[in-house]
Amino acid sequence: MISLADLPLRDDLVGQEPYGAPQIDVPIVLNVNENPYPPSQVIRHEMAAAIVSAAGTLNRYPDREALGLRGDLAAYLGHGLSAENVWVANGSNEVMAHLLTAFGGPGRRVLTFTPTYSMYPEYARNTCTEYVTVPRHPDYTLDADLVLGAIAEHRPTVTLITTPNNPTGTTVDLATIEAVLEGSDTLLVVDEAYQEFSSGPSALELLAKHPRLIVSRTMSKAFALAGGRVGYLAAAPAIVDACRIVRLPYHLSAQTQAIARVALAHSDELLAQVRSLAAEARAFEDWARGRGYEVIDSESNFSLFGRFPDRHRVWQDLLDRGILIRETGPAGFLRVSAGTPDEMAILRSALDELSPPLEGNPS
Amino acid sequence: MISLADLPLRDDLVGQEPYGAPQIDVPIVLNVNENPYPPSQVIRHEMAAAIVSAAGTLNRYPDREALGLRGDLAAYLGHGLSAENVWVANGSNEVMAHLLTAFGGPGRRVLTFTPTYSMYPEYARNTCTEYVTVPRHPDYTLDADLVLGAIAEHRPTVTLITTPNNPTGTTVDLATIEAVLEGSDTLLVVDEAYQEFSSGPSALELLAKHPRLIVSRTMSKAFALAGGRVGYLAAAPAIVDACRIVRLPYHLSAQTQAIARVALAHSDELLAQVRSLAAEARAFEDWARGRGYEVIDSESNFSLFGRFPDRHRVWQDLLDRGILIRETGPAGFLRVSAGTPDEMAILRSALDELSPPLEGNPS
Repeated sequence: MISLADLPLRDDLVGQEPYGAPQIDVPIVLNVNENPYPPSQVIRHEMAAAIVSAAGTLNRYPDREALGLRGDLAAYLGHGLSAENVWVANGSNEVMAHLLTAFGGPGRRVLTFTPTYSMYPEYARNTCTEYVTVPRHPDYTLDADLVLGAIAEHRPTVTLITTPNNPTGTTVDLATIEAVLEGSDTLLVVDEAYQEFSSGPSALELLAKHPRLIVSRTMSKAFALAGGRVGYLAAAPAIVDACRIVRLPYHLSAQTQAIARVALAHSDELLAQVRSLAAEARAFEDWARGRGYEVIDSESNFSLFGRFPDRHRVWQDLLDRGILIRETGPAGFLRVSAGTPDEMAILRSALDELSPPLEGNPS
Repeated sequence: MISLADLPLRDDLVGQEPYGAPQIDVPIVLNVNENPYPPSQVIRHEMAAAIVSAAGTLNRYPDREALGLRGDLAAYLGHGLSAENVWVANGSNEVMAHLLTAFGGPGRRVLTFTPTYSMYPEYARNTCTEYVTVPRHPDYTLDADLVLGAIAEHRPTVTLITTPNNPTGTTVDLATIEAVLEGSDTLLVVDEAYQEFSSGPSALELLAKHPRLIVSRTMSKAFALAGGRVGYLAAAPAIVDACRIVRLPYHLSAQTQAIARVALAHSDELLAQVRSLAAEARAFEDWARGRGYEVIDSESNFSLFGRFPDRHRVWQDLLDRGILIRETGPAGFLRVSAGTPDEMAILRSALDELSPPLEGNPS
């Protein structure tokens, strides 16, 4: 039997493992920032009807440009955008891979600010782009001086700012993003995967004035479509054209285009859930502060709290009670996704049963 | 408005265009080797039922390992294969991208034999792998001397042999493939996208003895699922593990996994179409030879015929009659996919109306 060590794996991949959070079958899953509410019966049956229709031509290649879906996404985003401003792919994973294939590659750098989303180094690795990070401020915020200083030092082709940031939930205001765009010539990807959960404005407002700005979004969270794998970006049409050059043709299946369009047709219903999930996360944070935990200010559907002297033990103790959260972020912190009210009540009870934090930061 | 020329596109992408055959809406589409038969009503409604079920958890990420689908594909392939021998992705495009990301990259080469599938250079380009080609014999066949000589000269990490080859339809026998595996240490990808249409044996027979062999397949053609975007490979588990390292997590949506499994459950029905489509292509070739055209021996669901002094004019003349075929392959040839009997009859009539080939090779 041949082993990986016998194969000519790319040098920088040797010793690596497939990425991914543990997929463990337990009653309460709060570890990957999913929306806890499945699509309604109405949506499920509209999806099935859309599949009966789409399946009538499944023997044919799908619309290579996904123009119907891109038009729907543009209409959802508003801000005067149209289909030519939108690119869509199999999850924001693939959108980012397209961007770094087009604008990264050997001899080029992508810059971001840690702690941040753990997938970014994978995008860089796969596209042979150098991955450079600079730490955020101690409170996990960013300002223009920090970002522009890092850009001046590292000369990235692409800079990534995540707001609300994962795993901290902290936001970056539009004045900072605008100052970065005005003070450098970097391509700036603002990853707004969790923007719908935030009370602040979207960087979409800056697109008309700033052609090097790219706003990345996903249907995984706000649209409760993690299983559907639909990510997208909004940008100048020339950015979309660059993605079109490097995408492999027919990258988005007919069934994905059909299902995403059904979800978008129900955005009112799905966005109502978004507001209640954000409220659930904020309520958990208030509760946690009241219990003496240190809590990072979040504008997302998840909360980062600690500090635990042995976070792994707490993670395991919760798992033993059937609750899966995420061991990620700064040392001593744990991340929990907003679940249903019942799920969050069970989580709070479980935490109260466990030993209190030894070095908390009581509010 | 910013243009592509203003953006920091990777140097080797400058001036490139998005790849793809023209998508033109005409009555008879015979240009991209699609299966002309849409899924039956039974299959379409089973797909819809599978979507109603899968949509019940669309708010959750899909099975990252797609183990159910990989097991079904292994069962379809037979040869003692199991899920750990199979990798599946969004079309064989993505399967090939995974392979070249894992085993290609800067400073490495992928070798193939022209004329062959026009997507291969795109996979190499996107993964920063050097693309090296060596011409096939004048009759578009390959033998071990030619392949091993090219491997010795170019030292590729990955070698690609396509059988039946696109666009020529010619096959490579198992003795040649085995000789290449025994005479070199290349990773050998045998692309069998059209294998189901061939009367010859599959390289799957060689997998047990040859751990550096990778057999690539697709559901686009034989399973009439071009719109579904499902490609896969069979290989040693270590090859699959290499793909798992470089795949971006959750690459295959819940809806794609569900729809592919429905199609596989109907493989008997779909493979019956395969036999009739292969017969349709062979009948067209017999007819074309009878008319004095030069025809390449094909074992696929398409035919390559010529030679036309001005193939573009013939392509355009057919398009003007509502028939879209493909202007590809060696100079003077046109490629036509097997359609329904009615479609092929209309094509033959249209060709008879056009001027006969000026430099034919009457049989």
